[in-house]
Amino acid sequence: MTRAAWIAGDWGTSRLRLYLCDAANKVLDTRQGRGAAAARGEHERELDAGIAGWQQDAGPLPVVLCGMVGSTIGWVQAPYLPAPADPQRLAAASVALRAGAVRIVPGVSCRNRLGAPDVMRGEETQILGAMSLEPALQRGAHLLCLPGTHTKWVVIDDGAIGEFLTAPAGEIFDLLSRHSVMVGDAAGERAPDESAFQSALARVRELPQVELLHRVFEVRSRRLLGEMPEAHAASYMSGLLVGSDVAGAARLFAQEAAAGKVFLVGAPELVRAYATALGAFGFGTQVIDGAAASLAGLGAIHGFLQREGMQRVTG
Amino acid sequence: MTRAAWIAGDWGTSRLRLYLCDAANKVLDTRQGRGAAAARGEHERELDAGIAGWQQDAGPLPVVLCGMVGSTIGWVQAPYLPAPADPQRLAAASVALRAGAVRIVPGVSCRNRLGAPDVMRGEETQILGAMSLEPALQRGAHLLCLPGTHTKWVVIDDGAIGEFLTAPAGEIFDLLSRHSVMVGDAAGERAPDESAFQSALARVRELPQVELLHRVFEVRSRRLLGEMPEAHAASYMSGLLVGSDVAGAARLFAQEAAAGKVFLVGAPELVRAYATALGAFGFGTQVIDGAAASLAGLGAIHGFLQREGMQRVTG
Repeated sequence: MTRAAWIAGDWGTSRLRLYLCDAANKVLDTRQGRGAAAARGEHERELDAGIAGWQQDAGPLPVVLCGMVGSTIGWVQAPYLPAPADPQRLAAASVALRAGAVRIVPGVSCRNRLGAPDVMRGEETQILGAMSLEPALQRGAHLLCLPGTHTKWVVIDDGAIGEFLTAPAGEIFDLLSRHSVMVGDAAGERAPDESAFQSALARVRELPQVELLHRVFEVRSRRLLGEMPEAHAASYMSGLLVGSDVAGAARLFAQEAAAGKVFLVGAPELVRAYATALGAFGFGTQVIDGAAASLAGLGAIHGFLQREGMQRVTG
Repeated sequence: MTRAAWIAGDWGTSRLRLYLCDAANKVLDTRQGRGAAAARGEHERELDAGIAGWQQDAGPLPVVLCGMVGSTIGWVQAPYLPAPADPQRLAAASVALRAGAVRIVPGVSCRNRLGAPDVMRGEETQILGAMSLEPALQRGAHLLCLPGTHTKWVVIDDGAIGEFLTAPAGEIFDLLSRHSVMVGDAAGERAPDESAFQSALARVRELPQVELLHRVFEVRSRRLLGEMPEAHAASYMSGLLVGSDVAGAARLFAQEAAAGKVFLVGAPELVRAYATALGAFGFGTQVIDGAAASLAGLGAIHGFLQREGMQRVTG
């Protein structure tokens, strides 16, 4: 067995994923823990509980963390690094705890082409990872899409995170499914229906300029008039949201999207929905697994910190 | 005192408003009762409790009701009348209870210019009332906006309700204010801030084609980066929603809107917000009070039923 060299931690709002890695970033063991929200006020204890066994075996190890652990609900606030953000700048801006034995990767802020400020936290590490997993991303301009509660559309330029735009499609889908009269009772509990999702995408493609706000009531009207079964409402709504997101992004990032395929980084189910929608709008896609990207990004940060002698373990 | 001739009832989801009227539709007295949702299963008893005193004094009186009392959560279901819908067709399609002593006005359905089905219930009566309060609406094509939980954009054509489009701006504002990370805790409780609302309208006007889904996260980013106080978040979000609704409707109904002013029918506060937004987009507006319009619409239906001998009171 190779020797444990460091610990990677992907610490989002609802889950902590810890990875024991060797010097070549190979994963030797994994653990899960409470998310940043549930561990509020006890982040240090939560981390120690997760890694105590590993340190007992291997001695003190450096830890690199990313995600909401660096936010207002986290352990310490790691201020947003203004874009453009490359691995070196992100590593250098990471917040040191315990004399550098624990590092938290900062989020990134930008002012995007809408003239709006925007922020990401956690995704910056996935994007670094995507660049290290897919070397083609390290040169030239590319469009990435990271679907999620807060979907990010990101332009990377010669290996650095440039501007980006957040579309809270997942959060709005969740609100509409659970609380609105549009989707209806318990419709969110049903199994996704692919044909309903596709029908909604086709609706968006017919009239791509129509505002989402002017589309969603259709889900209620179709149910009331008997044109759609209750069980299809959530999938149809999902298609309207993902379709509107893709249609709008295709306009905003027309140049970057036309230059090549769109790189999708995230969890399999969400990535599949966005790949379907992007395909329906004529875009090629390439998928990069989100969890693998997070780990690779933490590895890239760790590598830089090691080389620069910024990571010490006092034991 | 003039003699009581009939009873009008505007019975929405959350409130029942009863009006005792004379033969000229002058209001002699008013009562309030539980909304259609709270009175579920007990609508008949709720109505009788509201009107018993009046009938004791005046003898049996005919009752005309509109709104959610005719929906799946109501007393009986009054099926949607397909547009175009004029006062005569709506009166003729009203559902008779108690041998015609109680009439419930049906909702209206249409297939709009997006090719989507749409429905209204309660608004059809307000629109009839608006036409009777404002005779200019009885000839030619006009654009009406009825702001609310489910804002309706309605084309009326020579005195009949034609096609319409529902924008659930109020419901989505409510969801985002109460449940989302965009607006933030308790921001919905603060007093509305006019300058924040105006700033958001200006943002929408800068780039009117941008999808709402690509705008709303700005409310969170500005707060996180210290560019906006927490207390302004709800008003800014309201401006983005109303602005996006108006910008989208201005594209969809460009011809009708360009022909003249937009008629706003509704409650004072919401109507004011939409008047401000429509003004910012260069449209003239004329306001018609929503409660007065509902009553006038019920009066128009009552008048037709009387003339046709469709309203009997068996006592």
